[in-house]
Amino acid sequence: MDCIELSTIEDGSVVSAAGFRAAGLHAGFRKNPQRYDVALLEADELCVVAGTFTQNVFCSAPVQVCKARLGNRGYGMARAVVINSGIANAATGPEGLRRARKSARIVAGAVGCAEDDVLVASTGVIGVQLPMEPYKNYAAQLHESASASAQSGHDAARATMTTDTHPKEYAVSYVSSAPGLQGVTFTVGGMAKGSGMIMPNMATMISCITTDAPLSGPVAHQVLLDVVNQTFNKVTVDSDTSTNDTCLLLASGKAAPSAMAEFTQDSQALAEFRSALLAVCTWLARDMARDGEGASKLVTVNVSDAANNADADEVARSIANSPLVKTAIYGHDANWGRIAAAAGKTHAAFQQEDVNIAIMGMPVCQAGLPVKFSEEEALARFEEPEIVIDVDLGSGDAATTVWTCDFTHEYITINGDYRS
Amino acid sequence: MDCIELSTIEDGSVVSAAGFRAAGLHAGFRKNPQRYDVALLEADELCVVAGTFTQNVFCSAPVQVCKARLGNRGYGMARAVVINSGIANAATGPEGLRRARKSARIVAGAVGCAEDDVLVASTGVIGVQLPMEPYKNYAAQLHESASASAQSGHDAARATMTTDTHPKEYAVSYVSSAPGLQGVTFTVGGMAKGSGMIMPNMATMISCITTDAPLSGPVAHQVLLDVVNQTFNKVTVDSDTSTNDTCLLLASGKAAPSAMAEFTQDSQALAEFRSALLAVCTWLARDMARDGEGASKLVTVNVSDAANNADADEVARSIANSPLVKTAIYGHDANWGRIAAAAGKTHAAFQQEDVNIAIMGMPVCQAGLPVKFSEEEALARFEEPEIVIDVDLGSGDAATTVWTCDFTHEYITINGDYRS
Repeated sequence: MDCIELSTIEDGSVVSAAGFRAAGLHAGFRKNPQRYDVALLEADELCVVAGTFTQNVFCSAPVQVCKARLGNRGYGMARAVVINSGIANAATGPEGLRRARKSARIVAGAVGCAEDDVLVASTGVIGVQLPMEPYKNYAAQLHESASASAQSGHDAARATMTTDTHPKEYAVSYVSSAPGLQGVTFTVGGMAKGSGMIMPNMATMISCITTDAPLSGPVAHQVLLDVVNQTFNKVTVDSDTSTNDTCLLLASGKAAPSAMAEFTQDSQALAEFRSALLAVCTWLARDMARDGEGASKLVTVNVSDAANNADADEVARSIANSPLVKTAIYGHDANWGRIAAAAGKTHAAFQQEDVNIAIMGMPVCQAGLPVKFSEEEALARFEEPEIVIDVDLGSGDAATTVWTCDFTHEYITINGDYRS
Repeated sequence: MDCIELSTIEDGSVVSAAGFRAAGLHAGFRKNPQRYDVALLEADELCVVAGTFTQNVFCSAPVQVCKARLGNRGYGMARAVVINSGIANAATGPEGLRRARKSARIVAGAVGCAEDDVLVASTGVIGVQLPMEPYKNYAAQLHESASASAQSGHDAARATMTTDTHPKEYAVSYVSSAPGLQGVTFTVGGMAKGSGMIMPNMATMISCITTDAPLSGPVAHQVLLDVVNQTFNKVTVDSDTSTNDTCLLLASGKAAPSAMAEFTQDSQALAEFRSALLAVCTWLARDMARDGEGASKLVTVNVSDAANNADADEVARSIANSPLVKTAIYGHDANWGRIAAAAGKTHAAFQQEDVNIAIMGMPVCQAGLPVKFSEEEALARFEEPEIVIDVDLGSGDAATTVWTCDFTHEYITINGDYRS
């Protein structure tokens, strides 16, 4: 495939793609009336949906409901997604499941679809039952106010936030050059909430991605898994994974010429779409890391020349999760010894004399030995908002990138004082 | 075996056991002349030594020297151990190895033994070459001032400290009732340095344990590994493991009746000794956790009814390493949802509906569901200096205990500002 040119959509959101509307408002899951706490994403018609979810044993009731609806295949059809923040509906037993289903039923009533066509997601405090009043009181208003305006998309994104400091939204479009689709514009847009308790294998992140490209369920599921593994699953804030992680991809097919068939495996059309999805998910994943609880920096850890993919991933995560590395970055300290120690404690196969490490492009360790560098220059480079660490293990051809953030006083403050 | 009665030795140290002398002083590895930075532990005669070391790929030069001396067996004979703080001699290549060996040679000259009979350990900054002047200038003084007084033991312990806030020393004695040993008193004493970068599989901890019991090399090595796995390897401060971890057990045999044979496997004498070693290492391990960088609390995580030992260990470590759990404890927040999420993200086999969790003896989750508890009572119990978390997985008979500390503002301050 030729390289596809992606255009960032100004004011992009989860409703940038054709066929979707959204809304966000305060319904009472939170005490503060200023905080939006419920979001509705609605498709104009029943559409294809694929999902991937937390693997935590304590997975929440809404995750169980979604998994049941999509089945083992991980895809199906949906008309709407309702997301609340403030209460996670996790560790709530059969009653929690009953309530998650009931919330879907109430929203389905307002939307005018079957209960099974509504997916649910929750984020917030664990171990508290989900109240039904907010749904009863606000489902109709949510449906009525749902629109395809950018503002509605922003409202929805805002309503899913917990300790996020800003809503996370991004959308791109591209003009296809695939056979039979020349000149057709497709759009992929999405929103995500992240912040603390984020780690591979989906962490408290909830993300909805929409597209007007035509995808079958199996294709949507496969491309979603593939892209999530390279993006959201490469973000780690504090090595904790959540009970509620949910990532959904909804495909309306509205931009396709009428009677256009769904994109097939190995087609140019799907490759183009995958590039766009990858761009959206990468943007959202990086924004989640940047906005990790208390973060002052986005930290990108690139591991190269590992013996295999598993080694690359383990080393990158070990570095990204090391509190000593993360506090050193916070302290603007080019303390590569901590990076080396974090790499060395893994099970990855490599020798210390083969390792090169650079911080912000500045070699600090070569062949396992220190490289003299200017502390002044290092301090200057630490002023950047994104800190890049490159680790070359000199043991093979595998590589990966993991994103995290630094570890600050603010993280302790936020998490030492979350429930109170 | 009947339960052995252990007596804590007042003012106990690494020289409480007969046959050992120690010293600690400032030799110039650190700039601050008030800080002791080199310790010598000397046996009156060549004695049995067993060791266990970090598994970090970036293992330090002194660790490589010790491993070479003890060989794959992990035991041998030694006359002295010299430990410096301030410089780790890690990531220093062949030159670092040469210097580690040379430091042993200089000390051996002062002690009057072979170079191979001196073991070395270092802790401090990575990637800096070890200067030889402090050894040249102070080896004789170290040897001459070495004594069996408690104060000398304390001086040695103090000289190994990095960010530790206090020296860690403990010693016990017991009167044997083993066949042929009735009425004979044996002593086990030790010192340890710990603090940050501490995690299973030995973390920046350096510990020397001495005893006047008669042990053969193989027996000393096996009992040391066994006890270290239950004690030092169950401590985690921030999930980072160090390049320099070293734990040595030296056995002089001086308390044994003359011509007494070494304790044999499966003997009552060895079982008694093991109890004493376990007590000393448990005390030191708990003290290391309690004094983790910035810690305000010792945190004990007990996992029970796991399907197997590996599951118990993984769940306990996952909880103990969770920044969200550790910040909640700092915030006096009985946020058991974070404990559940940390348990649930492991690969351990269990169902959420089988899980019970208690904090400070107060049930907070039963059968995977919240238990109503008094927030006031919870706050009161959080005033204790040790916080105990009990997690019952309801899936088998395996159990373990892991020790850690809470995660505080002070941790960020210490580690954001270590080199400067």
